[in-house]
Amino acid sequence: MTHRWLIENGTFVVLEEGRSVIQGYMLIEDDTILYIGETRPEGEEETFTYDGKGQLFAPGLVNTHGHAAMSLLRGYGDDLSLQVWLQEKMWPMEAKFTSRDVYWGTALSVVEMLKGGTTTFLDMYDHMDQVAKVVDESGIRGVLMRGAIGLCPEDVQQQKLDEAIRFAKDWNGKANGRITTMMSPHAPYTCPPAFIEKFVQAAHDLDLPLHTHMSETASEVAQNVEEYGLRPVAHLEKLGFFTRPSIVAHAVHLNDEEIERLAANKVAVSHNPGSNLKLASGIARVTDLLKSGVKVSLGTDGAASNNNLDMFEEIRLAALIHKGFSGDPTAIPAEVALKMGTIYGAESIYLERVGRLSAGMKADFIAIDTEQAHFLPRTDYVSHMVYSAGPKDVLHVWVNGEQVVKQGNCLTIDEERVRHEAQACFEGLLAR
Amino acid sequence: MTHRWLIENGTFVVLEEGRSVIQGYMLIEDDTILYIGETRPEGEEETFTYDGKGQLFAPGLVNTHGHAAMSLLRGYGDDLSLQVWLQEKMWPMEAKFTSRDVYWGTALSVVEMLKGGTTTFLDMYDHMDQVAKVVDESGIRGVLMRGAIGLCPEDVQQQKLDEAIRFAKDWNGKANGRITTMMSPHAPYTCPPAFIEKFVQAAHDLDLPLHTHMSETASEVAQNVEEYGLRPVAHLEKLGFFTRPSIVAHAVHLNDEEIERLAANKVAVSHNPGSNLKLASGIARVTDLLKSGVKVSLGTDGAASNNNLDMFEEIRLAALIHKGFSGDPTAIPAEVALKMGTIYGAESIYLERVGRLSAGMKADFIAIDTEQAHFLPRTDYVSHMVYSAGPKDVLHVWVNGEQVVKQGNCLTIDEERVRHEAQACFEGLLAR
Repeated sequence: MTHRWLIENGTFVVLEEGRSVIQGYMLIEDDTILYIGETRPEGEEETFTYDGKGQLFAPGLVNTHGHAAMSLLRGYGDDLSLQVWLQEKMWPMEAKFTSRDVYWGTALSVVEMLKGGTTTFLDMYDHMDQVAKVVDESGIRGVLMRGAIGLCPEDVQQQKLDEAIRFAKDWNGKANGRITTMMSPHAPYTCPPAFIEKFVQAAHDLDLPLHTHMSETASEVAQNVEEYGLRPVAHLEKLGFFTRPSIVAHAVHLNDEEIERLAANKVAVSHNPGSNLKLASGIARVTDLLKSGVKVSLGTDGAASNNNLDMFEEIRLAALIHKGFSGDPTAIPAEVALKMGTIYGAESIYLERVGRLSAGMKADFIAIDTEQAHFLPRTDYVSHMVYSAGPKDVLHVWVNGEQVVKQGNCLTIDEERVRHEAQACFEGLLAR
Repeated sequence: MTHRWLIENGTFVVLEEGRSVIQGYMLIEDDTILYIGETRPEGEEETFTYDGKGQLFAPGLVNTHGHAAMSLLRGYGDDLSLQVWLQEKMWPMEAKFTSRDVYWGTALSVVEMLKGGTTTFLDMYDHMDQVAKVVDESGIRGVLMRGAIGLCPEDVQQQKLDEAIRFAKDWNGKANGRITTMMSPHAPYTCPPAFIEKFVQAAHDLDLPLHTHMSETASEVAQNVEEYGLRPVAHLEKLGFFTRPSIVAHAVHLNDEEIERLAANKVAVSHNPGSNLKLASGIARVTDLLKSGVKVSLGTDGAASNNNLDMFEEIRLAALIHKGFSGDPTAIPAEVALKMGTIYGAESIYLERVGRLSAGMKADFIAIDTEQAHFLPRTDYVSHMVYSAGPKDVLHVWVNGEQVVKQGNCLTIDEERVRHEAQACFEGLLAR
């Protein structure tokens, strides 16, 4: 039996050329938006109707870079130099992560993301079967990949590659199509060239996109030049990385030529402003990237370096910090920032039917409560969503046509149990 | 009859040397905190006890610079150059503001601030009797002043000065002491030197502190040098401004000598990161100011340039952007950022008994719901409050011992009416 329903009296964020918001109707059947427009669709007299008064309907937010299970380390190490943070805090704890930790850490993150209006997230981590299980059970959409560090003996490298391939094959298209997969060597500075080439080959064999960390810090760029005689963009290009659809995370330290090469190769960039600020990695050249035609989306990175998974905050940071850094108050206007968090996000991770409210798209959308002081006066809803809103303004969330959050509560996850188990996992990590 | 009550099972943000958080008890009588500690106070067997389990009690947030009524212009002009924004958007609309607009605009802001955990705000605007009325009625704490622009004939100047003096006298100490007042010439670039000197004299006569905008943009600094041969700090010093307790807003463009002069004169600075970023004014030298011993607090500025009044966001921005700009991930640690939003805030606006949870302080505090995904694991509550929390995590708010927000709803203000009237005021401004 099909589930067909009509939202009336709604305000819809459509982000179309010339009009960003419309008042009207949206018709949904099962997992798909059939119609959106200012006039009531004809022949729907019998259709179940939902009154959207006082609510702003927007595309679900798309988080294009993260490591969900790292929420188990939220607040475990802050305000430290990068090397102390990594070597004394993150890596020793992450080395102890079990499947169980990854399951509950990911579940903790998915609770936060869904309630905060994120309907799709990219995840690069280990024990990925557990992540896929959480995605399957929770109803969120996930673009998942085993992130592999290649600083290990060749047999371990091969094992990781096999695991990444097996995971990518097993889960691609699963959970009613909510899961897609990619191939992901961790980063040029953590993967020998031959290891990266094997991932590129696997991505060709499996017809999947590629993802990696790139040029997050100035020192890793310098190291790349020293070791391979090339900056990371040229290095990855030489290894064939950009012969596949690909998305690189961070891309903070780029020269003009690298920006041109990314644009020419249609490489997408996941900008992670919160994480980049907190780790003091630098300020990505987002205005220049966009100007050159590079698709820039937004990611939270892991909660250990953010420290939340609030995509409203990333959207706002993207709109604010590039104004502040450049001295140009017209840089990254609200609408561009919101596109980075929605449609550019979906395009960056190669989901064609996600990220926009329009006929034929997947029914991934959120309802925001506008009957609140910070949504007044009713001047510009895109501005309010970008500069004023927060994750807890989200009332309802639908993914693939299924409601997963209602009145701010998860319908698909036992939140209390997740909080309890996540805390227990953290205590277990401390004790081991 | 006195109202005496005890919170037990609470987690309290005390921000003391060596311990930032304690588990235990807080005893309140009327408007004052009598005791806070890890052991149950003796002799309180009969006292009404409140179970604080799952809640984080923190000092109410202190917003040290703003123009509350400007929330009526939220989203009315974004992503514009400063001059277009001011001359084509803000000033024409503000010129039409009536007392009624200021009343409802301020009420709209106070709803947002109280619900978001802000218990004290500084307000510099016009029609200040209306602002004082909202403060009186709503239960919030306000440090209020008539901000006077002196680019007008001398008789109008005199009228504004008289009005500022009259307001400061009438309202200082009113609303059970929740209102204090200051004298406030708008800015060196909008006030002739003689006009500023009259405010300084009045501040001496009335024994009140002084507030002004200072060095928000590079161009106003250049203009100051051109017109008066001095940069703004030296200019204000020459006019006697710093002979009074004073706080300057923004202070973005400072040289080393100016930082030294601010420190030597014990001038407080209200840092407004959100507004400075959005208007692309520049990045204040907060790390250098703190290092020199200047008291730096946080302000939202008006909602037209922010676009919300969320002090959690200002605290987080303060902790994030100075790391990002400096490249030093240890800059402005979480605890310092939180102090800027609480105790440094209170000290900056010369409120001795506000901004900290300790015996003898005013009972201005908030309860945050920690039974949420983004407060887990329970690693470091100060980190969670700074890097992960948001305004809607605030469950309850008390000011001067009175509860003003309960379960996220205002007890003292009819929120629905405020939203309705604020929208009507905005539409009226558009129509006039």
